[in-house]
Amino acid sequence: MTEKQEVERKFLVQQLPDLEQATKVRIRQGYITQTDDSVELRLRQKGDNYFLTLKSGDGLVRSENEISISAQQFDQLWPNTLGQRIEKVRWKGQISEQLQFELDVFEGSLAPLQLVEVEFSSVAQAEGFQVPDWFGDDVTLIKGYKNKALATQGIPSLL
Amino acid sequence: MTEKQEVERKFLVQQLPDLEQATKVRIRQGYITQTDDSVELRLRQKGDNYFLTLKSGDGLVRSENEISISAQQFDQLWPNTLGQRIEKVRWKGQISEQLQFELDVFEGSLAPLQLVEVEFSSVAQAEGFQVPDWFGDDVTLIKGYKNKALATQGIPSLL
Repeated sequence: MTEKQEVERKFLVQQLPDLEQATKVRIRQGYITQTDDSVELRLRQKGDNYFLTLKSGDGLVRSENEISISAQQFDQLWPNTLGQRIEKVRWKGQISEQLQFELDVFEGSLAPLQLVEVEFSSVAQAEGFQVPDWFGDDVTLIKGYKNKALATQGIPSLL
Repeated sequence: MTEKQEVERKFLVQQLPDLEQATKVRIRQGYITQTDDSVELRLRQKGDNYFLTLKSGDGLVRSENEISISAQQFDQLWPNTLGQRIEKVRWKGQISEQLQFELDVFEGSLAPLQLVEVEFSSVAQAEGFQVPDWFGDDVTLIKGYKNKALATQGIPSLL
């Protein structure tokens, strides 16, 4: 059994780069359930697409069930995510011919947080990455910067 | 502030009545969440209509949020209710000029349970109700016969 290996690094942002060539999409996601519930129910808007995702199980038996919903259905359910939301604009652009960045500019209660992610095709490529000047600290290993942690706990306090 | 008062009585069924004049609708409902979760997420099919209902809060601050979903969305989410379902055919008919019965004939793991409910416009009317011959024991006050209890715990064992 082979799985696609995902190698990503995540950084804070020192200063915004030139975004003229970048594409932009609005992302909102919010959690309806609480951390200790038996299932996780998430609403997500990405541009003009809306999703309801249900995750259940833990450990070996996990399942994820994502369905498309309408903008109206999204709007009807969104109030239930109050206090557990992420709202951001995601910019995608090129760092080099092979490498793309995904820059998340957070809004709402998470502003002015900005995070940038780069996906690599191998661990060697990730380790050899020449970090651009506009990148800030590497936060790849800090769990507080994961989407769900940001939504439920806010911006991590500095160590 | 006035609220519509709902007065209902619920009975087991001694024997099925003549249903020639009654209307029939298939009802399926299932729970995605578990009893101790912070929210309750329920799927419901009534004939050709499909709903997702989210209930949250308890005590004084409760909210209920029901949205219409498509048959396809229902089918995508339904597997998540395994083990917490009710499937039944609901017959509606007249007992008298003023009184209607709702007879639920359960299927699946709840078969051969049958329950009949009558809604009254006042407590006095409910108390003076002439119980038809085809009705069985009055189970109005037995919590085990509520929909959610039936879905999660099955048919109540006899006392």
